[in-house]
Amino acid sequence: MDDDFPQFSAALSDALKDRDLARISELLGDHDAGDIVRALEREDAADRAVLYRLLRREHALEVFELLEPGLRAELFAGLRDEEVARLFEQLDPDDRAQLVDELPAGVAKDLMSGLSASERELTAPILGYPRGAIGRHMSTEFVRLQPQLTVGDALTHVQLRGPGAETVYMLPVTDPERRVVGVVGLRELVMEPGDLGLAEVMTEAQVVRAVDPAEQAARRVVDGQLLAAPVVDSEDRVVGILTIDDAARILEDAEDEDAARQGASEPLRRPYLTTPVFGIVRARVVWLLVLAVSALLTVQVLGIFEDAIEQVVTLALFVPLLTGTAGNTGSQAATTVTRALALGEVTSRDVLVVAWREVRVGATLGALLGALGFVLATLAFGIDFGGVIGITLVVVCTIAATVGGAMPMLARAVRADPAVFSTPFISTFCDATSLVVYFVVATWLLGL
Amino acid sequence: MDDDFPQFSAALSDALKDRDLARISELLGDHDAGDIVRALEREDAADRAVLYRLLRREHALEVFELLEPGLRAELFAGLRDEEVARLFEQLDPDDRAQLVDELPAGVAKDLMSGLSASERELTAPILGYPRGAIGRHMSTEFVRLQPQLTVGDALTHVQLRGPGAETVYMLPVTDPERRVVGVVGLRELVMEPGDLGLAEVMTEAQVVRAVDPAEQAARRVVDGQLLAAPVVDSEDRVVGILTIDDAARILEDAEDEDAARQGASEPLRRPYLTTPVFGIVRARVVWLLVLAVSALLTVQVLGIFEDAIEQVVTLALFVPLLTGTAGNTGSQAATTVTRALALGEVTSRDVLVVAWREVRVGATLGALLGALGFVLATLAFGIDFGGVIGITLVVVCTIAATVGGAMPMLARAVRADPAVFSTPFISTFCDATSLVVYFVVATWLLGL
Repeated sequence: MDDDFPQFSAALSDALKDRDLARISELLGDHDAGDIVRALEREDAADRAVLYRLLRREHALEVFELLEPGLRAELFAGLRDEEVARLFEQLDPDDRAQLVDELPAGVAKDLMSGLSASERELTAPILGYPRGAIGRHMSTEFVRLQPQLTVGDALTHVQLRGPGAETVYMLPVTDPERRVVGVVGLRELVMEPGDLGLAEVMTEAQVVRAVDPAEQAARRVVDGQLLAAPVVDSEDRVVGILTIDDAARILEDAEDEDAARQGASEPLRRPYLTTPVFGIVRARVVWLLVLAVSALLTVQVLGIFEDAIEQVVTLALFVPLLTGTAGNTGSQAATTVTRALALGEVTSRDVLVVAWREVRVGATLGALLGALGFVLATLAFGIDFGGVIGITLVVVCTIAATVGGAMPMLARAVRADPAVFSTPFISTFCDATSLVVYFVVATWLLGL
Repeated sequence: MDDDFPQFSAALSDALKDRDLARISELLGDHDAGDIVRALEREDAADRAVLYRLLRREHALEVFELLEPGLRAELFAGLRDEEVARLFEQLDPDDRAQLVDELPAGVAKDLMSGLSASERELTAPILGYPRGAIGRHMSTEFVRLQPQLTVGDALTHVQLRGPGAETVYMLPVTDPERRVVGVVGLRELVMEPGDLGLAEVMTEAQVVRAVDPAEQAARRVVDGQLLAAPVVDSEDRVVGILTIDDAARILEDAEDEDAARQGASEPLRRPYLTTPVFGIVRARVVWLLVLAVSALLTVQVLGIFEDAIEQVVTLALFVPLLTGTAGNTGSQAATTVTRALALGEVTSRDVLVVAWREVRVGATLGALLGALGFVLATLAFGIDFGGVIGITLVVVCTIAATVGGAMPMLARAVRADPAVFSTPFISTFCDATSLVVYFVVATWLLGL
């Protein structure tokens, strides 16, 4: 169980340090593939190769397939050529295609040409689709059925053709041109009377197109609680299937990317603990620089109002509070809307609906915070100053929520990743805006 | 397909406005359950009930099960009592249990007592587990097999007992005390020779415990690419199963919650467009107030250094840039570490490892940004000032990354949600810290 993972991982690390291979084998034998993968993802590349080679043969393939894609290519480098070739031949075609993307072009080409003809034939169609399309993640090992079969004949067909297939739990039913006319589950084939026609037990197929964006197709499968969906080409012919476990993994990777972007860094391509410090720096430094350079705008804005600050130094005291509140309001809106976009709850056409909702939300939040700010600032610095803080908060919260909500919508409208307008990006934008509002209101109310 | 969803949704809204029931029925008949659910989640409660009642009977149950839990209870309120009773009886026990949580206690009690004895018996065990435990999401309709059966007999057993089960694709094999001794897939029962013993074809079970946190158990199923996992009680007896589609949905909800918390709001309990403006305000206002009140700390800090600002007003110009950079660095670290915790890549025991990594990452980022800041500030305001900005950036980035990385770890260590230390929370903390560093360095270097 999960609870003993830290002990397992620590024991494994100790055994590695002592190069106690017998102890390592014993530990690996006691744990399931999931725990082994987690443990592997905590060790460095050399130790990972050592551990991997000590796995029991029946575990090795499963562990490899569960490993983060970023680590698979690296692991290859630590294995002998014949081990690599055998593993490459055993992989599912979709996992193999993904690996090809990770490997140096020369290595990938050699491995592909070393494949048996049948495996190469299963892999080639996947590689024909662009990266980011669901065709790149589909499984080409599937069994399709003719609608004129009986349930009994269909079951026999599955028994004959099924052993190599990725899944036989969802079976596309196709016409002679390979166009999908329905789907049937293995469950139906087992449960329904054998003499019924397949056409009578099959249900409507929910298909995805091979060129569809991977995340969108995967969400369709997961949200529809489908076990698998047929993948079709531009002429509606079935070219593969997308299983729910692959779909769930695609979504997990997409969430990873969104979460990283929301925090203004690029997603790490491998688990946190195995990413070198310099790799983490690289994932963060570009955004940090972009944001810092944008923040020079705030220096400019404050420069314009330097005289006002000189006259009333108290004005400077509230700068971080106001910019902070603006940033928080903006990032709340951006987070909510980005997520709603990812889930398909809103589409880019809804930009005005969303903006109008956020105007009202922002104004309400601003009124609440403004009232509080007015009271506190009045008590500390007099009613004039209270008025400046109160009015500024109302205006700033309204703007921040509206901008925070609208920006991801606009990004989606121009087909960019909505998460590009990350929380920190919106914070920085709101910082500058809130400063302008603040000093305009102050100049006016305090008569500077 | 997905692409015509906006047209479908717009046409549906128009037909609703015109109360053109025939057109609505036609539109609903043309689309699959996934699209209908998305469309439903965009309308208000009254229209949603109208649409729902126009669904074809075979769609109605599927649509209801795919609906956001927050909307199901509300939809009940718009249906007639007998419709409600029928729907409640038809639901899967796990969906029913979830609904009970949403409904007013009186209504739930009435509905439960109106259930048939067999359905009540299937639902009661689920309700016996605490909210947040995976037992609350398990399916109690499953078929278990005895290890002494042959493959052929097992298949017959599944044919007899399977029709009511949530899934028959993964079947737990149990001893007479209902303890799991293995699992077998329907695939194996269909593919393997009928006279083989079940014990020879079953594989090791990867079980989850009914009291395990739901997210952790769900991630185990999804990461392990299991179709389903048996759920066991404290005595290792199987009490239910967790299917991958339910697991994927649990993870999606967990991501929702994490994404919202990272953006400093509470997750909305229903889709964005159907949440009233006041509901959105409520989800955000508490955090916004907490953060604004914490930000009063920055006013205090600046108050202490008011004299320094009065002497060198230029100091005030860089306040938003420095607090912003500190906040960004902190939130980058927090986002990465929160995600690594969610994925199980690090555990709370790794706090020192993580902190030490973030010290190095932060110092590297600080050195890069500090060098840039030193050059720019020196050019604009002289070398003394350049020194202040450069040194401050190095120190502040190091502290921010370390704190941002360590805070989620500490939250997990005390069993709180790591996402509670949201980006804005860490920003606010970093704001105050960076101001102190800034003015201490300035006072020292500029001799104030």
